[in-house]
Amino acid sequence: MTQNPAAVAATSVASVQAPAPVVLDHVEPPDWWVGMARPELQLMLHGAGIGALQAEIAPMPGVTLTGARRGDSPNYLFLDLRIDAGARPGTLTLRLKRDGQVVLEHPYPLQARAAGSAQRESFGPKDAIYLVVPDRFANGDPRNDQVAGMAEGVRRDDPGGRHGGDLAGLTAHLDYIAAMGFTMLWPTPLSENNSPKWSYHGYGATDFYKTDPRFGSNADYVALSLEARRRGIGLIQDIVLNHIGVHHWWMADLPTTDWINVWPQYTETHHARMTLQDPYAAPSDRKRFSDGWFSPGMPDLNQRQPLVATYLTQMSLWWIERAGLAGVRTDTYSYSDKDFLAAWSRRLKDEYPRLNIVGEEWSPHPAVVSYWQAGKVNHDGYVSSLPSLMDFPLQEALLAGLNQADSHDGGFTRIYEALAHDFVYPDAGNLVLFEGNHDTPRLYSALHEDVDLTRMAWAYLSFVRRIPQFFYGTEILMTSPRHRDDGVVRADFPGGWPGDTVNAFTGAGLSERQRDAQAFLKRLLNWRKSEPLVHGGALMQYAPMANSYVLFRYDAAKGLRGRRLMLVLHKGREPQELALDRFPEMLRGGETATDVITGERRTLGRTLTLPAKSVTVLSIE
Amino acid sequence: MTQNPAAVAATSVASVQAPAPVVLDHVEPPDWWVGMARPELQLMLHGAGIGALQAEIAPMPGVTLTGARRGDSPNYLFLDLRIDAGARPGTLTLRLKRDGQVVLEHPYPLQARAAGSAQRESFGPKDAIYLVVPDRFANGDPRNDQVAGMAEGVRRDDPGGRHGGDLAGLTAHLDYIAAMGFTMLWPTPLSENNSPKWSYHGYGATDFYKTDPRFGSNADYVALSLEARRRGIGLIQDIVLNHIGVHHWWMADLPTTDWINVWPQYTETHHARMTLQDPYAAPSDRKRFSDGWFSPGMPDLNQRQPLVATYLTQMSLWWIERAGLAGVRTDTYSYSDKDFLAAWSRRLKDEYPRLNIVGEEWSPHPAVVSYWQAGKVNHDGYVSSLPSLMDFPLQEALLAGLNQADSHDGGFTRIYEALAHDFVYPDAGNLVLFEGNHDTPRLYSALHEDVDLTRMAWAYLSFVRRIPQFFYGTEILMTSPRHRDDGVVRADFPGGWPGDTVNAFTGAGLSERQRDAQAFLKRLLNWRKSEPLVHGGALMQYAPMANSYVLFRYDAAKGLRGRRLMLVLHKGREPQELALDRFPEMLRGGETATDVITGERRTLGRTLTLPAKSVTVLSIE
Repeated sequence: MTQNPAAVAATSVASVQAPAPVVLDHVEPPDWWVGMARPELQLMLHGAGIGALQAEIAPMPGVTLTGARRGDSPNYLFLDLRIDAGARPGTLTLRLKRDGQVVLEHPYPLQARAAGSAQRESFGPKDAIYLVVPDRFANGDPRNDQVAGMAEGVRRDDPGGRHGGDLAGLTAHLDYIAAMGFTMLWPTPLSENNSPKWSYHGYGATDFYKTDPRFGSNADYVALSLEARRRGIGLIQDIVLNHIGVHHWWMADLPTTDWINVWPQYTETHHARMTLQDPYAAPSDRKRFSDGWFSPGMPDLNQRQPLVATYLTQMSLWWIERAGLAGVRTDTYSYSDKDFLAAWSRRLKDEYPRLNIVGEEWSPHPAVVSYWQAGKVNHDGYVSSLPSLMDFPLQEALLAGLNQADSHDGGFTRIYEALAHDFVYPDAGNLVLFEGNHDTPRLYSALHEDVDLTRMAWAYLSFVRRIPQFFYGTEILMTSPRHRDDGVVRADFPGGWPGDTVNAFTGAGLSERQRDAQAFLKRLLNWRKSEPLVHGGALMQYAPMANSYVLFRYDAAKGLRGRRLMLVLHKGREPQELALDRFPEMLRGGETATDVITGERRTLGRTLTLPAKSVTVLSIE
Repeated sequence: MTQNPAAVAATSVASVQAPAPVVLDHVEPPDWWVGMARPELQLMLHGAGIGALQAEIAPMPGVTLTGARRGDSPNYLFLDLRIDAGARPGTLTLRLKRDGQVVLEHPYPLQARAAGSAQRESFGPKDAIYLVVPDRFANGDPRNDQVAGMAEGVRRDDPGGRHGGDLAGLTAHLDYIAAMGFTMLWPTPLSENNSPKWSYHGYGATDFYKTDPRFGSNADYVALSLEARRRGIGLIQDIVLNHIGVHHWWMADLPTTDWINVWPQYTETHHARMTLQDPYAAPSDRKRFSDGWFSPGMPDLNQRQPLVATYLTQMSLWWIERAGLAGVRTDTYSYSDKDFLAAWSRRLKDEYPRLNIVGEEWSPHPAVVSYWQAGKVNHDGYVSSLPSLMDFPLQEALLAGLNQADSHDGGFTRIYEALAHDFVYPDAGNLVLFEGNHDTPRLYSALHEDVDLTRMAWAYLSFVRRIPQFFYGTEILMTSPRHRDDGVVRADFPGGWPGDTVNAFTGAGLSERQRDAQAFLKRLLNWRKSEPLVHGGALMQYAPMANSYVLFRYDAAKGLRGRRLMLVLHKGREPQELALDRFPEMLRGGETATDVITGERRTLGRTLTLPAKSVTVLSIE
């Protein structure tokens, strides 16, 4: 779907004579659709000297060329098209002329949209998200381990190198992912990252419109989406708006001098994200946060340049439409220009009103994370359109609280108070609560390899008003250092490589502890999948006491007359009798309860026996 | 000013005959004023059997008895008076009748208010507050160490016992407090606490209208206020609305059955203060937080009973007017009924529009503390009228951040991000930032007895947009355990007792380190006292880097053209050159700067040399 120079060149008019054949090496987006909500489309054309040419289009009903402009480089043309509601699918012919002579014709596909595309469903509280690092999940096609023209090949013994995982591997194991109970798949970025080092992680795009060939092709990516959908799994794309890789093709020939944020000398962001909210922040500090580079290998895009903003927005829409995405995750959200971010997410929502988009704002502070959620009334008047955020505050509190001794302000109380902060969010139930991701130590290690605490974390994620997200391998208790160590956190999933002696897909070679953990999470997620009270029920929580923390989900209209769910986390090292009269709003006494994990039924008496360090999930009639 | 039974009995009509002489043992408030903003006044009368009597008043222009009601006990009468704007000072005669016969006359003083009383100034960012525990500061009058009728005498070797400090001791050392640079004095409560144990702390009132005789008399208290004012020091009263001491005289004869919150069995608050904001809180948990007792010795007042609410409100007004208070500190603020709190503070502000009132909400969360500040638009529609809160979030961050190694999310960044949260407050500059109080480990100990870090904390308090508050003895680096240990944290101030070998008032016996610290704080506070940029200047802070944290105060209208203040905290263990071009908004280069601590003048060059672990405060022209 994207052009390589040879293919595009073939479309140029063969009969053109001197001075030199005109060659387009990039036309982006490479194609588009009729029937989008907004009619504007801006094409970026790149080819030697084309900035000096005149553009026109062959007549096509409903399609107008409303403008053409050059960049600062002589090798770009930006064409503004208008595709009215009445336009029909077909091929639009772009023409470039010199001195009145057509020197190039480029066929530009305008396609029909898939049925229901605009109204597609997205991820939400009904879902459980599985985050995978594709290079580290499964190597389904060893033939793409080394690809000509790609700077980095496979070196599996290097934690920071490529390990060979790919789209074929991911697609081959969709059955496993579905059986585990996941309903959404979030792979870290798959776009081309043609850099000599650390290309495996995908966050330094060198071509936004091209799947990295070491992962597969764009067609493979679309196939993954289709195959996933057949199994009830939606695909979430990880989109990076803030930066590119330093080997991106733009870097050799920047479209405009302000395409990226340029500094007199190399200046890195200081990650001081609160400069955006701080009433006392120095403007120079705000600028450094937003415009400083993420790393020397990641030039910072200038989204205040309207051409950049439009490019990034269309690129996002293109992938949603092309790959039938179920949602978007946005990397390093707040590092981009904040006015651009509002416009970008507003445009995505204009095209896909039910689309969910989750932004990464890595802050432990609810006041900071909530600033970015659509609907928040902000102190500075900033109006965001982003529907969801990663819930770093609750994730941090969950881990800290599980690790800490219980007290009136620590342990479970830490978690309880973090959840109680939901009043600062306009839509807390749409936040994504994760137990770990590719940038954090693995859950099991963060919890000091305590499997009981690990189960508590999973149960909490599955129970509260959130969209839960799990990091691949957590289900088999994969470990990592407790400090940040990216290459090691993103270790290979056992069974994903030919010759692996342990296979987590089949269970072969797993320890009993690992198999139990995997079975526990599988049971939990499969129960959650069809539990409407978790998807949309009201929540009630009680102040933690005596090493236990109790929450309920219920039907607000029915209260005690309706079915209820009860979660009890108990950290005590001894069994304990939990007096049930502390929960008068949620328990009448004498109800029948089904244990969601074991399937056992019981009648609730005056107390509930909590095993030592246990998770209890009950469905109460 | 308050009645003891004998004195009140003397006012009863001697000629009354059978069945028994009527005796009033309490009339509260004991007197009042004409010319208050609101005309209503409700008197509580207590005496055996008086509930059966009829009340009237002798005619007095502008004064009307609008109602009288009984309690559930037969020994109370509540009289509703209206004192119109035209009323003149004088003595109102209250009459109680039985069967049409006057059985008691009580002269009730209605006084003239002090000039300017309603428009009194209060504490604010111009001030520095000195918090003292009077029992532990200075014993000025050993004659009141043991008082007949008081259950507890002095036992100075018991950390939880009375040590003998009193109003005479406090008054005698006002010159010291003023010389140190403090402009506000906050003593912990001085009201009668006639309990057999822990009476020294004052938080369990047994008579709201009576100064504990072991501290002195009400007259001594008013004298303290006057003497303080002569030295430029305002008096802040610590008022407890939530609870009383279990030996309060009410407890033997409750006015109404709902005067205190009664439970089927003893129920203590679980301190789960977020039940008040948590959208998921169980109503039973909310009730337990608000209505549970603070301790078995502290019955919980029911402010939903209007008679209680009125009593507490008038009691607060009475002390402000009587003692010429400069402000109010409210203990355990959120534990009282929240609607009462809003009405209470609104009424105080109606009477004293410039009065500052600071509430104690012991939470590390800005979202929770800000909920209570007047002007906050809350998610649940709650409208507060409280102008100020103790800044627990920033205090916690300050100590944690000073103790922690610096990083992009720890150390100074912790403090920086906490201050950046000011956007959640409607009036962050009116918060009281403290370095320690009677419930927390002492600053110097919390900072691992690091005098450099201690100076940084003091300088920060003195510099940022806050009202700073210091705990007595911090200036001489008094120590405590690092866990909570009330009796030990509230140790005796050396020099306050006859025979003390160390005297912090004179400096005798202090170590050089202590004398240096005391001199440093004295210099800082005396500078602050007359520094308008600290009182009202704008604030700018820069993201901490390389172990240093830089803030400025400046005149927003003048910017670089005006005088500026610069604070640099440097935690590095080696001297460091701070590049000044990082602060373009605040430094042009080449300015003349005066070091506020040393008085030295210098011209600013490209860098500023920071000594190891240092505080630098510059005034820049």
